[in-house]
Amino acid sequence: MKKRAFFYIVLLLAFGIGILAMLRWGARLYPGGAIPGTELPASESTGALSILFLQLIVIIAVARWVGALFRRMGQPAVVGEMVAGILLGPSFLGMLLPSAQSFVFPPGSLGALKLLSEIGVILFMFIVGIDLDLGHFRRKADAAVLVSHASIVVPLFLGVGLCLFLYPRLAPSGVPFLGFALFTGTAMSITAFPVLARILAERSLTRTRLGSTALACAAVDDATAWCLLAVVVAIVRASGFAGSLLTVASTAAFAGVMLLLVKPWLARRVDTGAWSGTGSKTLLAVVLTFLLTSSLITEIIGIHALFGAFLAGVVMPAREEFRRFLRERLESFSSVFLLPLFFASTGLRTEVGLLGDAKEWLLCATIVAAAIVGKLGGSSVAARAAGIPWRESLALGTLMNARGLIELIALNVGYEMGVLSPRVFTMMVLMALITTCMTGPLLAVLKVGGRQEESRFSETHAMPGDERAPSRPSWEN
Amino acid sequence: MKKRAFFYIVLLLAFGIGILAMLRWGARLYPGGAIPGTELPASESTGALSILFLQLIVIIAVARWVGALFRRMGQPAVVGEMVAGILLGPSFLGMLLPSAQSFVFPPGSLGALKLLSEIGVILFMFIVGIDLDLGHFRRKADAAVLVSHASIVVPLFLGVGLCLFLYPRLAPSGVPFLGFALFTGTAMSITAFPVLARILAERSLTRTRLGSTALACAAVDDATAWCLLAVVVAIVRASGFAGSLLTVASTAAFAGVMLLLVKPWLARRVDTGAWSGTGSKTLLAVVLTFLLTSSLITEIIGIHALFGAFLAGVVMPAREEFRRFLRERLESFSSVFLLPLFFASTGLRTEVGLLGDAKEWLLCATIVAAAIVGKLGGSSVAARAAGIPWRESLALGTLMNARGLIELIALNVGYEMGVLSPRVFTMMVLMALITTCMTGPLLAVLKVGGRQEESRFSETHAMPGDERAPSRPSWEN
Repeated sequence: MKKRAFFYIVLLLAFGIGILAMLRWGARLYPGGAIPGTELPASESTGALSILFLQLIVIIAVARWVGALFRRMGQPAVVGEMVAGILLGPSFLGMLLPSAQSFVFPPGSLGALKLLSEIGVILFMFIVGIDLDLGHFRRKADAAVLVSHASIVVPLFLGVGLCLFLYPRLAPSGVPFLGFALFTGTAMSITAFPVLARILAERSLTRTRLGSTALACAAVDDATAWCLLAVVVAIVRASGFAGSLLTVASTAAFAGVMLLLVKPWLARRVDTGAWSGTGSKTLLAVVLTFLLTSSLITEIIGIHALFGAFLAGVVMPAREEFRRFLRERLESFSSVFLLPLFFASTGLRTEVGLLGDAKEWLLCATIVAAAIVGKLGGSSVAARAAGIPWRESLALGTLMNARGLIELIALNVGYEMGVLSPRVFTMMVLMALITTCMTGPLLAVLKVGGRQEESRFSETHAMPGDERAPSRPSWEN
Repeated sequence: MKKRAFFYIVLLLAFGIGILAMLRWGARLYPGGAIPGTELPASESTGALSILFLQLIVIIAVARWVGALFRRMGQPAVVGEMVAGILLGPSFLGMLLPSAQSFVFPPGSLGALKLLSEIGVILFMFIVGIDLDLGHFRRKADAAVLVSHASIVVPLFLGVGLCLFLYPRLAPSGVPFLGFALFTGTAMSITAFPVLARILAERSLTRTRLGSTALACAAVDDATAWCLLAVVVAIVRASGFAGSLLTVASTAAFAGVMLLLVKPWLARRVDTGAWSGTGSKTLLAVVLTFLLTSSLITEIIGIHALFGAFLAGVVMPAREEFRRFLRERLESFSSVFLLPLFFASTGLRTEVGLLGDAKEWLLCATIVAAAIVGKLGGSSVAARAAGIPWRESLALGTLMNARGLIELIALNVGYEMGVLSPRVFTMMVLMALITTCMTGPLLAVLKVGGRQEESRFSETHAMPGDERAPSRPSWEN
């Protein structure tokens, strides 16, 4: 032991002195080394990275806080996170503390945020696709298609009608009526499957008749609305009739290949255990490459990468372990880290201050009213017509009316295509918020589903498959 | 049933006709809608997103393939992934198919890639910190400190000595000798804890005396080398002696607060179960915020965000479930998706073509030789002096000589600070590759550890804690 200590000290001393001597010698040999660092160019990326970190910290923390606050108020946490994004934008922080806002979100710094939020949304849409269980649909096919399509076609009708009035007042210049009206109408007809599933689970309605009907309707709605939106994007983006026909045809062909060839092939691979010897990381790499390729194809076709991500999720093999494997690996990172960035990006684009006078607030109220009447009214009446009792029909309509995050995703697509002006975008964001927020209270008024003691395990973007028994500490879930 | 179908058809027909009529009416009312989409500005972000997706697909796929190839050749997959990055850069793809290279990696498109790779490395360093188990150290404290510090001080000595010769030939202009020599020397003294742990696990040596000594040495090496590197970065970045002293002092103060106050506090919180009721996503959000804050602080102090990430990992509570929770949520996404991007970023900076003539290749060979003699030689001799038999001492030296990914991370820090010129960077990358590749074959020559049947569960960046029993299909791990 003594010998070792002696050796250690001699070693450090000898080499240490040697190193210092050589450093001195070199500095004398090559002067200019006297004042270290003065001539080094500052790395440009350093500042950008610091700003990004600051943004991430602020966004994640505020999203969690406001989310928790809303949960305590009986709303799903995701509504709070949506609100958090808007609070960080020009509508609140920018009004209250403009200097703080421009310190944390300087205009030049938003590229990184936007990129990360885009990746987050693509992962999220993939997970939404994974959770699109058409088994719900098969069990409830009779009522679901009717209610769901009514809940699309009625708000689309009202939306297009409203646009006859809105177009000259609010459409960005250069956008043709067809694109504007179709996009606005379709955006009104969206239902948020994840929020709906969450609300049902929180009220322990998932396994009731109302719950399974609502899930089936929302699944059909999701699938139909995104198809419709893809077509609308194709029409808006492509130049000329031939162009949009080509885009729509390619989209249909791609979706057909994915659903009719890739999906059964993947299912067979999993069922025959072809992957059971694959390492988890290899499998994840394969899935991510598949997801990215599908997104890239839809982007090249001329619709949006989102559709590809959604489709990639839909064709994933239905085996529960497999889907859980993907959810566990991708969902927590994306929902904790990346989705709040999306809400913040959305919030930075939402400028409530743009709605200056009473007339514009009236327009906004009209949009909200049309959205509610179309979606809630349309699906309730259709449900009643399908033979469901009134109270349940209204509850179903209320659930379908929640637009949540999915609506924001669609709106951002429109904003980036230039179809929605910042003003219309803001109005539609408010519409999404209001329709999502009213779901809980309305259900309470209808006395549907006792809101159970808040589960420790209920989580923001948790998916319907998540209701596992709490056998481990909750954070191990 | 018939009534429903009738209602459905009437509904679709009525509203469908209504929508079409309004669209026609609107288009006539507001002409300019005749040719949809022609006047829309193309979204600038679309092209960038497509390019990024293409890059991600290529990088993930090539990294997996080359990684699998190297595994079949008896090398850890991470070596293959490092090589994959270089193959995608100007050294191979750029030489062979310059047009393909510039199509996939156009110069203007690398910002997004770099950003993602930086986030990946920060997550990775956090995980390295989490896995830095100083328990290894306590069990083997006697030999470990001696061997580890010998394996740092000898290559540092040789590196600084070599720089007396290299500085006038290869240093970027404006970089003082002190910074260049210290950085190069420190970079030579790095050991790759993750690769070492992986090699030990693959040869089922983890629980042998050699294995536990090697893990202890590598842990001490990791901690020491990163402290040293932080000091060097502080010296290089700060202007003047006072500036670097301030940076070093702030770093020491921050590290002290983290290790002496934050670490025990966090451990107590976990042990008393203060978090057991927290949702997994809330916990993840708290941890991510903590990680980002720590990174931001080190970035503000003037060293690199990496150090903060590493430190944040080190102070995480030691409870195994807690660490596993974090690894599961963060590691697969970061190692499958983000780390290959880091390798590709590194590869894009590595230009073997820069080493034009024989003289430069000779310099490169000298660097490699100095690195091997310093690290392998230094630690072997020290291990022998500590009383370990020769064969085991040599095996220990061989293991410490593997530099792996950690070296690349340090080199990129130097490159971005402007301390390493592209030429020195390339030479050092080659050094990292060669020293990592030689570990496996050398161990085979020394007849240490029968290479067991390749485990299905052995995974690229898997950490030492990962050797769980295979009770589920491997991809569920």
